Amino acid sequence: QGILERLDAGEIVIGDGGFVFALEKRGYVKAGPWTPEAAVEHPEAVRQLHREFLRAGSNVLQTFTFYASEDKLENRGNYVAEKLTCQKVNEAACDIAREVANEGDALVAGGVSQTPSYLSCKDKAEVKAAFRKQLDVFVKKNVDFLIAEYFEHVEEAVWAVEVLKESGKPVAATMCIGPEGDMHGVPPGQCAVQLVKAGASVVGVNCHFDPDTCLETVKLMKEGLQAAKLKAHLMSQPLAFHTPDCGKQGFIDLPEFPFGLEPRILTRWDIQKYVRKAYDLGIRYIGGCCGFEPYHIRAIAEELGPERGFLPEGSEKHGNWGSGLSMHTKPWVRARARKEYWENLKPASGRPYCPSMSKPDGWGVTKGARELMQQKEATSEQQLKELFQKQKF
Amino acid sequence: QGILERLDAGEIVIGDGGFVFALEKRGYVKAGPWTPEAAVEHPEAVRQLHREFLRAGSNVLQTFTFYASEDKLENRGNYVAEKLTCQKVNEAACDIAREVANEGDALVAGGVSQTPSYLSCKDKAEVKAAFRKQLDVFVKKNVDFLIAEYFEHVEEAVWAVEVLKESGKPVAATMCIGPEGDMHGVPPGQCAVQLVKAGASVVGVNCHFDPDTCLETVKLMKEGLQAAKLKAHLMSQPLAFHTPDCGKQGFIDLPEFPFGLEPRILTRWDIQKYVRKAYDLGIRYIGGCCGFEPYHIRAIAEELGPERGFLPEGSEKHGNWGSGLSMHTKPWVRARARKEYWENLKPASGRPYCPSMSKPDGWGVTKGARELMQQKEATSEQQLKELFQKQKF
Amino acid sequence: QGILERLDAGEIVIGDGGFVFALEKRGYVKAGPWTPEAAVEHPEAVRQLHREFLRAGSNVLQTFTFYASEDKLENRGNYVAEKLTCQKVNEAACDIAREVANEGDALVAGGVSQTPSYLSCKDKAEVKAAFRKQLDVFVKKNVDFLIAEYFEHVEEAVWAVEVLKESGKPVAATMCIGPEGDMHGVPPGQCAVQLVKAGASVVGVNCHFDPDTCLETVKLMKEGLQAAKLKAHLMSQPLAFHTPDCGKQGFIDLPEFPFGLEPRILTRWDIQKYVRKAYDLGIRYIGGCCGFEPYHIRAIAEELGPERGFLPEGSEKHGNWGSGLSMHTKPWVRARARKEYWENLKPASGRPYCPSMSKPDGWGVTKGARELMQQKEATSEQQLKELFQKQKF
Amino acid sequence: QGILERLDAGEIVIGDGGFVFALEKRGYVKAGPWTPEAAVEHPEAVRQLHREFLRAGSNVLQTFTFYASEDKLENRGNYVAEKLTCQKVNEAACDIAREVANEGDALVAGGVSQTPSYLSCKDKAEVKAAFRKQLDVFVKKNVDFLIAEYFEHVEEAVWAVEVLKESGKPVAATMCIGPEGDMHGVPPGQCAVQLVKAGASVVGVNCHFDPDTCLETVKLMKEGLQAAKLKAHLMSQPLAFHTPDCGKQGFIDLPEFPFGLEPRILTRWDIQKYVRKAYDLGIRYIGGCCGFEPYHIRAIAEELGPERGFLPEGSEKHGNWGSGLSMHTKPWVRARARKEYWENLKPASGRPYCPSMSKPDGWGVTKGARELMQQKEATSEQQLKELFQKQKF
Repeated sequence: QGILERLDAGEIVIGDGGFVFALEKRGYVKAGPWTPEAAVEHPEAVRQLHREFLRAGSNVLQTFTFYASEDKLENRGNYVAEKLTCQKVNEAACDIAREVANEGDALVAGGVSQTPSYLSCKDKAEVKAAFRKQLDVFVKKNVDFLIAEYFEHVEEAVWAVEVLKESGKPVAATMCIGPEGDMHGVPPGQCAVQLVKAGASVVGVNCHFDPDTCLETVKLMKEGLQAAKLKAHLMSQPLAFHTPDCGKQGFIDLPEFPFGLEPRILTRWDIQKYVRKAYDLGIRYIGGCCGFEPYHIRAIAEELGPERGFLPEGSEKHGNWGSGLSMHTKPWVRARARKEYWENLKPASGRPYCPSMSKPDGWGVTKGARELMQQKEATSEQQLKELFQKQKF
Repeated sequence: QGILERLDAGEIVIGDGGFVFALEKRGYVKAGPWTPEAAVEHPEAVRQLHREFLRAGSNVLQTFTFYASEDKLENRGNYVAEKLTCQKVNEAACDIAREVANEGDALVAGGVSQTPSYLSCKDKAEVKAAFRKQLDVFVKKNVDFLIAEYFEHVEEAVWAVEVLKESGKPVAATMCIGPEGDMHGVPPGQCAVQLVKAGASVVGVNCHFDPDTCLETVKLMKEGLQAAKLKAHLMSQPLAFHTPDCGKQGFIDLPEFPFGLEPRILTRWDIQKYVRKAYDLGIRYIGGCCGFEPYHIRAIAEELGPERGFLPEGSEKHGNWGSGLSMHTKPWVRARARKEYWENLKPASGRPYCPSMSKPDGWGVTKGARELMQQKEATSEQQLKELFQKQKF
Repeated sequence: QGILERLDAGEIVIGDGGFVFALEKRGYVKAGPWTPEAAVEHPEAVRQLHREFLRAGSNVLQTFTFYASEDKLENRGNYVAEKLTCQKVNEAACDIAREVANEGDALVAGGVSQTPSYLSCKDKAEVKAAFRKQLDVFVKKNVDFLIAEYFEHVEEAVWAVEVLKESGKPVAATMCIGPEGDMHGVPPGQCAVQLVKAGASVVGVNCHFDPDTCLETVKLMKEGLQAAKLKAHLMSQPLAFHTPDCGKQGFIDLPEFPFGLEPRILTRWDIQKYVRKAYDLGIRYIGGCCGFEPYHIRAIAEELGPERGFLPEGSEKHGNWGSGLSMHTKPWVRARARKEYWENLKPASGRPYCPSMSKPDGWGVTKGARELMQQKEATSEQQLKELFQKQKF
Repeated sequence: QGILERLDAGEIVIGDGGFVFALEKRGYVKAGPWTPEAAVEHPEAVRQLHREFLRAGSNVLQTFTFYASEDKLENRGNYVAEKLTCQKVNEAACDIAREVANEGDALVAGGVSQTPSYLSCKDKAEVKAAFRKQLDVFVKKNVDFLIAEYFEHVEEAVWAVEVLKESGKPVAATMCIGPEGDMHGVPPGQCAVQLVKAGASVVGVNCHFDPDTCLETVKLMKEGLQAAKLKAHLMSQPLAFHTPDCGKQGFIDLPEFPFGLEPRILTRWDIQKYVRKAYDLGIRYIGGCCGFEPYHIRAIAEELGPERGFLPEGSEKHGNWGSGLSMHTKPWVRARARKEYWENLKPASGRPYCPSMSKPDGWGVTKGARELMQQKEATSEQQLKELFQKQKF
């Protein structure tokens, strides 16, 4: 059954977790470029991660094609070897996802994300051509449906949806925005309306913000759609990091991004709270993005066990609310094998010299950082912004 | 070259990370029992984790045989299927470790850990028999050397070393103790002396405490050996969790153990600080235990790059002190591609409703937890202790 | 020179600090009733506090007549002795304020605050009568001007201003509201417009929120006045407690109110930052409310020393930015005698088991608290609200 | 009845709070010199503070003669006006204390503290002469007993006790040390023994550390005395600041000292916990030092109300465990009028950008601070230490 049949029937669809972050920690993705050449270089590592998400309960395996557009890969030319063409990377990613999907009951979704072409102000045709190159592979490899994800500007997201719709396959679209809307100030409700009008059957948000902020944003999308009398399924794939302190551009601007985010990682119990809230809000496509490891996905499946009537394979190595601890050696650890314990725990950081909140960087960068940038690249904030428009996407 | 040739020549040996915690998050180990049946059930998952540690720079791959003694597996009889005999689990673990070790320049170490037999006050012969069962497999599979690890009582650790020495292979021994010493109050310096006298060539600590606490303990061991005019190599494999607030029994007693430890996870920069301190203390076998993911091991190899003259394979996807960030899209993130930035960062937790420190449980359990235990299992703390002596190891 | 002559001439006017909180800690005010009977019972204590504020730089001494309306004092009948009539308390407070004001260059302001009559839905005439009773004393004692302060509802504040204007004296009016506006939802800009139209020459906010929140509110008032083409002087008298986590009703709803607020107390350096922001916003009547001790007021005067050209008497026992520390015994403490040190300090709480933020109570009271209330006083939230309308103001 | 009659009879004696810190905040003491010239300059302010402590329950009023030795006052010559001779300051302080003591049932204690003469290595005779100058005044003014307090070196404390004993009056002696002992490394137990042998009838600690640390130190003193078969009453007057993170020299070395300590201030409930622990440890002279305001002293008296059978006058404006809140306007605040609420509250700091712990300065000063000192005053740590020996005591 396809994605829309499942959602239309009222089923819950569980997404997968964050590949670039998980594979960065496993040693196969480089932070900075964030490109997915591992699909070609180390297929066994990508395959194993897919398999873990499947086992944890994912109903969708997204092809590992984040930032795999031709312009992005070329921009990283001095980094990604020549042989790693856009086509090869996308094909390898499709093959791996399909191989693992066939081991269980999962759909394969081909994914595109924002392009340097758009950020460098290339025209609509050129940007669309970039998406089309990836789409050609997805069609050839016959993925089950398509996802346009991680867009900061609704205009580009709409273009992506328009291209993906050419395939005739169902399209889901998620933006990496918060309640303040996209980078041009288009509010979430309006973004959702534009995406649905462009052809998306599922809309929502992914990445950049923690679950609470993402759900607030999806709620605004839902209200926008209702006001416009449009129908679409809702989807949410947030970070597995707490980010109450980030600004409009999300966790990128936090001083801890990307190598000091550990204290912010969500526990499995934080995930269960997120899932319950998402479900109550009417979201039926529930997954994760950066920071989500297999055990976070399993927590989605376990929280929704009562609604779905079954648990994922991976739960044989877990048990609800820590029930496996009843087999622990020490009695006071066994006493933790219950919901009330974990539900109410306020976990300590073990970091008494660290604060709980940070001030985000971004254009409001710290003085030291700005000086450094200025020496190297610009002499004014205007120039910095121009650099931002011109370089290194 | 064997482990002792390397250490005797002054080489640094990098250990691997924590299998039970990493595989629990990947869905293959159950918290509570913590047994390693995945070696038989899901060899591909164990193999992939070994491969990631190898790629990250590990010079030693420990067989995934933690808690794989026969008495432990039998105690979990209703959980671990019958076919998963001690022999099968240990053999499978040896085969996987060897297969991956052959992909690079790594040694295979067969590992034993504390047994329920000892905790249930079985006699020396019976406890030694349990170790010997595992040793038989290690000898048959011809591992390169042996590790006795995760011992809370030096007496049992000595018995383990004595058994392992029967093989004629080099033996390393680490205890999961802090500066206060073992559970019977034997101080670290004395523990080290006993272990060396029993035949261990390498001694140190693993698990239960964060790097600072572990290094303090190894320092006491070193001083004990010096006072006794004994020689041995030093080894440290701490947690990748900050635990400034735990008591004598380590992180087990923290209220966050094992499902709320996320805010305590060490960053790669925390690891680099640990490694420098360990090296300066004279420790040359440097690895990790629970919480150590492949990127933590890579951080060991990167910190010691100057001393060793090379970087691990996995560093092609990293770059010293975040240098890969120089390819990031946003200029203020590119400005983070430098040592001073990460070295001085005090990462925020994003958890403003959570404290930084916890009060450990243990026999000083919380009232609620004690009540629960009492209803179910005991009516006095004495009985609790008796239960502890009798049950569920 | 009167208050308006000073403000019209562009002078900065420094208010005083929080009497009820300061005298509660000194043992003369009871938290709960918060009534000012100490003016009669212990005039020496009230006099000394006035004197300290004067010495710290206050240009205005407010009569200690908070909650000194007849209806409030009578409501506390079983607590405040009969002889402590409204008239006696108000007269004593005027006498003390005048006596101290004459020791320096300060004005005396008679103050009224919100009444139980209004909260109990008495009609306009009755509420106005309560204010008039206090005003009679202020006129008889010839205070220099009048302040209507601590109003949660703009309607009542307008009635107060109308009554106070009958005296022909200048009137200032401050509400204890945040950016969300008054308890009936009237936004700050509109509150300001109504108060000025009613006759207030100075408008602003006092109490309930920390400086940042108060300044945000005054900014909204300023914008409201500008939009309405009205002119008035601006005034701010915030808490000396950090309250980033409180809701619409301010610090009252924080779990720490009123006996656990210590970790939130502003340092003198926090005050200096507040003052600079207030000044830059165009506020010229700058003082404090609950939590402000004499040294906080002195910090206002010191921050504005350059603008005003002089320092208060109390600065002889201080020195800018800790310069007095240059006479400390220990050299590393002497090294703290400089602006950069204190300006950048992020003071630790010394409370590793406590969080940095709380969830406010209020109608969203904690379950435990609600149960307690229900047992004693109500069986539904509706009843709770009704009780709130009927009782104990 | 004298101090010893009371203590010998098993009575609890409640001390007073911290004058220099309280009067600094009120504007009468300068941080840095910390000298008590206010006794002459502003007797009304000193008198009022005494009165507040008396009202709060203090049984002893200490003369405000901290740092009032002739050498200290002279060292501050460019600061303290010439007319403020040692004799005048000490006499004025005695007069004020006696005047207020006569308003209630309190004893007057004349106090001496450590001298610059000792720190500058003057000989025993010279140091003793300094104490004797103050003692002459105390004898002339006929104080009830004497306290030698705030000594970092037991040698000097012993000299002080020997001098004070010449008067024939009872002598109490407290040191500002922690469990590590005095600045020369003499452990607390030994300090206590020496002080008792020198003639002190009451021994203990004051200042520099929080209650928990102080009680740990007094416990060591008690054990030292027991081991030496000596008898003395125990006394504790700690800080009202949480200092779990300070080193051997106490809160002086914390980066927050003295102008950023606000987040560390103890609540009244923290005090009650301290008092209970102190009482259970056998301490019967219980008071406070820096940071103790009148309401902290009242908390001592309220906690010990059951044992003593009465409450202080100031409790008429309080009520046990917040019971006065039952008269508050809002029902959810009335719900806080109970012991369980305040006892279990973990107060938030409202400072999400601040940590909970600091690294102490001291000889291990921060790099920045050291550079500053070096530029100005020294070029090596040795020189810094020499400066410390020579200057500005």
